[in-house]
Amino acid sequence: MARKIYVFDTTLRDGEQVPGAKLNLVEKLDVAEQIAKMKVDMMEVGFPSSSQGDFEAVQAISRKIGKDVSIAALGRAVRSDIDCIYESIREAENPLIHIVLGSSDVHVSKKFGKTPQQVIEMGVGAVKYASSLLPQVQYSLEDASRSEFDYLWQTIEAVVKAGATIINVPDTVGFAIPEKFGQLIYRINDRLKNLDPKVMLSVHCHNDTGLATANTLAAVKNGADKVECTINGIGERAGNTSLEEVVMGIKLHGDYYGGYTTVDSHQIYETSRMVSATMGLDIQVNKAITGENAFAHSSGIHQDGLLKSKDVYEIMDPETIGAPAMEIVLTARSGRHAFAHVTSRLGFDIPETLSAEIYKKFLLMADEKKEIYDNDVLNLLNSCSLVCRGEYPELWQLVDYQLSVTKQLPTATIELVKGTKKVVQSQSGTGVIDALYGAIIGAIGAPIELIDYRINSLSRGKGSLGKVTAQIRSDAQLYTGKAIEQDVIRASALALINAVNKMVLEQTRA
Amino acid sequence: MARKIYVFDTTLRDGEQVPGAKLNLVEKLDVAEQIAKMKVDMMEVGFPSSSQGDFEAVQAISRKIGKDVSIAALGRAVRSDIDCIYESIREAENPLIHIVLGSSDVHVSKKFGKTPQQVIEMGVGAVKYASSLLPQVQYSLEDASRSEFDYLWQTIEAVVKAGATIINVPDTVGFAIPEKFGQLIYRINDRLKNLDPKVMLSVHCHNDTGLATANTLAAVKNGADKVECTINGIGERAGNTSLEEVVMGIKLHGDYYGGYTTVDSHQIYETSRMVSATMGLDIQVNKAITGENAFAHSSGIHQDGLLKSKDVYEIMDPETIGAPAMEIVLTARSGRHAFAHVTSRLGFDIPETLSAEIYKKFLLMADEKKEIYDNDVLNLLNSCSLVCRGEYPELWQLVDYQLSVTKQLPTATIELVKGTKKVVQSQSGTGVIDALYGAIIGAIGAPIELIDYRINSLSRGKGSLGKVTAQIRSDAQLYTGKAIEQDVIRASALALINAVNKMVLEQTRA
Repeated sequence: MARKIYVFDTTLRDGEQVPGAKLNLVEKLDVAEQIAKMKVDMMEVGFPSSSQGDFEAVQAISRKIGKDVSIAALGRAVRSDIDCIYESIREAENPLIHIVLGSSDVHVSKKFGKTPQQVIEMGVGAVKYASSLLPQVQYSLEDASRSEFDYLWQTIEAVVKAGATIINVPDTVGFAIPEKFGQLIYRINDRLKNLDPKVMLSVHCHNDTGLATANTLAAVKNGADKVECTINGIGERAGNTSLEEVVMGIKLHGDYYGGYTTVDSHQIYETSRMVSATMGLDIQVNKAITGENAFAHSSGIHQDGLLKSKDVYEIMDPETIGAPAMEIVLTARSGRHAFAHVTSRLGFDIPETLSAEIYKKFLLMADEKKEIYDNDVLNLLNSCSLVCRGEYPELWQLVDYQLSVTKQLPTATIELVKGTKKVVQSQSGTGVIDALYGAIIGAIGAPIELIDYRINSLSRGKGSLGKVTAQIRSDAQLYTGKAIEQDVIRASALALINAVNKMVLEQTRA
Repeated sequence: MARKIYVFDTTLRDGEQVPGAKLNLVEKLDVAEQIAKMKVDMMEVGFPSSSQGDFEAVQAISRKIGKDVSIAALGRAVRSDIDCIYESIREAENPLIHIVLGSSDVHVSKKFGKTPQQVIEMGVGAVKYASSLLPQVQYSLEDASRSEFDYLWQTIEAVVKAGATIINVPDTVGFAIPEKFGQLIYRINDRLKNLDPKVMLSVHCHNDTGLATANTLAAVKNGADKVECTINGIGERAGNTSLEEVVMGIKLHGDYYGGYTTVDSHQIYETSRMVSATMGLDIQVNKAITGENAFAHSSGIHQDGLLKSKDVYEIMDPETIGAPAMEIVLTARSGRHAFAHVTSRLGFDIPETLSAEIYKKFLLMADEKKEIYDNDVLNLLNSCSLVCRGEYPELWQLVDYQLSVTKQLPTATIELVKGTKKVVQSQSGTGVIDALYGAIIGAIGAPIELIDYRINSLSRGKGSLGKVTAQIRSDAQLYTGKAIEQDVIRASALALINAVNKMVLEQTRA
């Protein structure tokens, strides 16, 4: 019989420990609401005794998130930390106190300078105190995977008797391997279910050697009831287990793992993008599940295979995680099929007699620019004097731009055309991109909100190409534009214009 | 007895299939030399029949790389592809022909439209022909993990008899899980070693569900002799197995896996950075092993633990992979210890009486800026009129800058000071960053080469902060500077100046 695997998200606690990723209260509330929308079972949202800011954020989230998601906060096994947790989460409808204490030799002796028995007593005292305040108490055995088993079990037995309702086994330093971690969980689970079948067994893995997902799944197979993870796998050092990988792994192989989660996978993409943008942590393009290329196919063989039958190369539908449908990226390896797909989306109806010549020009351009975006295709076809765009709407094109950047007041002037319409607009801003985007949005004159803006450089050194991605929102719809240019300013302008043109095309068709 | 696990790098073939990552000939040769320096056993460098450019690159690498690394190139099971491979690699001292052909139902029926027996015959014919040209032939059973076992084995038996010297089992779509993939490899290995013990068994995994490393290691545990991977795990969709994760996994758990590789792990960091910069594929900060934060500790608890004993939180010395020593990143969570560490590195000797006040100012600044870099600390201490820098060298500081950006000719003017020296310099360039960096490097007047330049935006929208990372080389030494500002232009200037100041400090001390 399939059993439910509980998902505990710690993006706002362990994830937020990434250098520079600290959020302000408003951002933290926004992310918490999105994580709740993804329907995790529990979310850990801070370490309230670490700072006043953390305390207030935990409290604000506790007041806002309803009873469907349990709200957890972390502290050390000392009374003052537990008091702080209690104060911060007591208004939550479903609060959970989380206590962490080391259990490995290196932690017990080097970090605390106590005897093993003294550490158990600390843990028991903390759990008893916490249980007197709230019914749900989770106890984490820090560095469990490097702990001596007998001592580990002795601790678990003691804290369960003291009132712990969840036992969490962390691979704190990311040293575990799936087979051994699975065995450890099997041994603990076997004894724990005899001791008290109501106590939940949880795991918390780190990704230092790239095995966090595999270790977590091995634990599920071996009896773990609950998994701790973060969106995009963010966290201290190499990060935590990726929520999206574990959730999708269990979904794809439910029969094997004998379990399921109740996470709404359709919210994964939006949550991933929001966490990435809000914390400023870019996602590697080839990150499993949530990377920009996770569902992108570029090689000739693969694009060809996909056009014949989707399941040749696709094991998951991007829609399952709420991602936009697979995009075929135009590169020097793209065939005529893929090129024609883009030109027709832009409204061009290329005559048979010209198509070979234009495709050849496209290949030359692709060799030079690596990736080809809408503005490039528009330029290419305009340069071929090809204006056979039928009934399609006119699109925006960049004619000229000028910026004057000083320490105090960056100012941008841009000139755009759309069909016969020509607009010149100037704007100053807090930074050069702020000024530039202000000018473009002003010129376009539509209600557009900039959601995401990213620059990547494409090769070494200052002569390199810059790739800019701009995402906008209009009428609750998202549109993404990209551009690659030698000048990041020009690339920035074109990326935004490409996004706007996608919006224009879609809004006209709707 | 520990057995050697062969490492086959396919960064320049499967890795290069990432959209936009295509390299030119010179870049490809550079990367190939660096990969060879890392002492992999084999490297696959292209698909020569796919384009003239690929053919020429494979040929150039074959001529350049010596016999220590086998050079492989890929093709389909057709004579023209094999001829192309042969022509491109025949001048290598140690060439390897790699043939790929589908073996799963979905490939055989939907992609080829042939009977299973016809596909085996295609494979046998191709291997026979390839063996007549060169002694080393690898046969890949595309989509092996989704193939029917009897058919898989029937194919393997036939192609081994036809002369294949390596059998490669790919998890083409990234669907495998470690336990099952391990079992598959165990079954194949058992029969293969009976059929012909000289034939090498290889695996090639993809990371669609985040399990490529775990699947590869499970295969090693179950008899695989050889692993295929890419640096940083780049590749089609969610990418391939990460070389660095597998190599370090085997190194850390050599006893368990009963094997070792002869890869020089000290070259991993440099190779990773080079591939990332040359292909324009940023590495997620929390990527295992090669991410910027893989060895970074930011939380109070961890920084504190580390100062007491390194092995509390560190399972690998960053030096093992050739990475710079662990960096303690200054954030609002950093303690006085960490702050004092940075101020003293910059040459300040803060009097006891002032330290509490200055630390408080630092915390205020850190709350606002998320991460604090050298220029921020210099500004902070200068604003406290603290110039007690003892015998330390003077550092560069940015006084003013102006840019005039037009479509044709971006021009930058900057003003820097260093002690009593004041320099104003103007420069134009192909892009705004090119102009700005040209001006700064000109002003500093030292032989500096810009190696890497990256921008990340730190929160949503155009009001966001920009984080810039600049890496320079001087006298064969690398120096990295970072800066966070609202204006990416200002952040770019400061990041470069921070890198230059690190160089000044180090060169004076040397």
